Amino acid sequence: MLKVTQQADTAELSGKGVTPTLGIVRVGERDDDIAYERGATKRCESVGVAVKQFVLPADATQKELLDLIGVINNDTSVHGVLLFRPLPKHMDEDAICNALSPEKDIDGITDGSMAGVFTDRRKGFAPCTAQACIAILDHFGVDLKGKKVTVIGRSLVIGKPVAMMLMKKNATVTICHTKTADMPAICRDAEILIVAAGRAKVVDKSYFSPGQIVIDVGINVDEAGNLCGDVDFAQAEPIVEAITPVPGGVGTVTTSILVSHVIEAARRRTEA
Amino acid sequence: MLKVTQQADTAELSGKGVTPTLGIVRVGERDDDIAYERGATKRCESVGVAVKQFVLPADATQKELLDLIGVINNDTSVHGVLLFRPLPKHMDEDAICNALSPEKDIDGITDGSMAGVFTDRRKGFAPCTAQACIAILDHFGVDLKGKKVTVIGRSLVIGKPVAMMLMKKNATVTICHTKTADMPAICRDAEILIVAAGRAKVVDKSYFSPGQIVIDVGINVDEAGNLCGDVDFAQAEPIVEAITPVPGGVGTVTTSILVSHVIEAARRRTEA
Repeated sequence: MLKVTQQADTAELSGKGVTPTLGIVRVGERDDDIAYERGATKRCESVGVAVKQFVLPADATQKELLDLIGVINNDTSVHGVLLFRPLPKHMDEDAICNALSPEKDIDGITDGSMAGVFTDRRKGFAPCTAQACIAILDHFGVDLKGKKVTVIGRSLVIGKPVAMMLMKKNATVTICHTKTADMPAICRDAEILIVAAGRAKVVDKSYFSPGQIVIDVGINVDEAGNLCGDVDFAQAEPIVEAITPVPGGVGTVTTSILVSHVIEAARRRTEA
Repeated sequence: MLKVTQQADTAELSGKGVTPTLGIVRVGERDDDIAYERGATKRCESVGVAVKQFVLPADATQKELLDLIGVINNDTSVHGVLLFRPLPKHMDEDAICNALSPEKDIDGITDGSMAGVFTDRRKGFAPCTAQACIAILDHFGVDLKGKKVTVIGRSLVIGKPVAMMLMKKNATVTICHTKTADMPAICRDAEILIVAAGRAKVVDKSYFSPGQIVIDVGINVDEAGNLCGDVDFAQAEPIVEAITPVPGGVGTVTTSILVSHVIEAARRRTEA
């Protein structure tokens, strides 16, 4: 459905001589990044969004990466930038994220986008994964107003921004993390659970109660070498009302949001 | 206690030829603003911080206010700025707040400070009232780690920033607001309650349970013309472990935090 809309959008921009283009910046050759890059590239091309790759070796200096971002900022053919993180430890991630031009920040990594999510003003873009969680709930017609939603995880990529976006939709949000006492009880009490714990299958049946909707944001590899979420799906599925699978859940929608953001960035530039 | 530290700090800066100075920007003659201004000025002067007033009439244009902020940005004798809000409705508050130099933003109103609070990186300053809540809990030795804290209110002045600051201290935070279902039950379940509902005495005994610590952020005038909080103090006090009074609670500490921020802004400039 979203794919059809995106094709129409790129066709319209194409008519104005603009090809929405995603710049992917990768430092090193991490398997996860390469797999995501492959998926995102395929998804982009299927709707008429071009992709430019920018790859540096894992031992690149911070200056080399900053110089590359400077080049991309000035490259008018690139409308949005995806920067794989975490960056190598010898780099100052905050400084590098904020070197990106705010209008190309389609994954919500600059201070401007962060402030936009926090203040609920239309500035920059929200992190794609956080927005994917909201898009899934929207797609299934889940009205968040007054709902008790618990978020596991307080990262800037998911936990904090998704909490802000849930609150904007009038949910009552609780944020849990590694220091939370009796997390299973708090989670059982929620109507909707967003899980971004960052560890394979750590959320077991003790966290769930009947009727819940569960969004599993995790992407991990289990002991058998298969992709799995942060939720133990086999334990959750018999209890809850609905749960997103891994693979095929949030990850798929995230890529689609990424593409939408590139198109939107290209449109904003055209209209500017 | 804090006052003694602040006197020592201003004395030290004075030795370097610097008088920490607060600029107060007020549009119109609202009683609340004038009362706060009087209190803040007195508090500043008692520790050696100077105050400069900048007052515009209530019907000033947006351009006049932006021009004034431009002048203050360039005035090296002013280290921190307090801008009274809400601004008159004919002004774009977001644009005006972000016109202020980030290094003078001692009350957390610019996007840079917002991003700093959201990301927990040392940028700008947190809103003084939100920081006052944390300072009170710190002062009484309340360890927030793993504690269930409920915040009533989701404003940018209190609710959202204090939630971020509580989370940084490892509390498990729930944010309630006007659309929350069964707010009293959620509040009774908390160990610590931060109330910023924005209406006089709306939080009654149904919100409390024994052992709780309650921070009342509200400042209102009751039917008898007396200052009161958002909590019905007479109903809360017999139930809870501790509650901050209004007047004399958060408001007093907020002014002290404001003074600390001016001194810190002056120090950062001196060290820059």
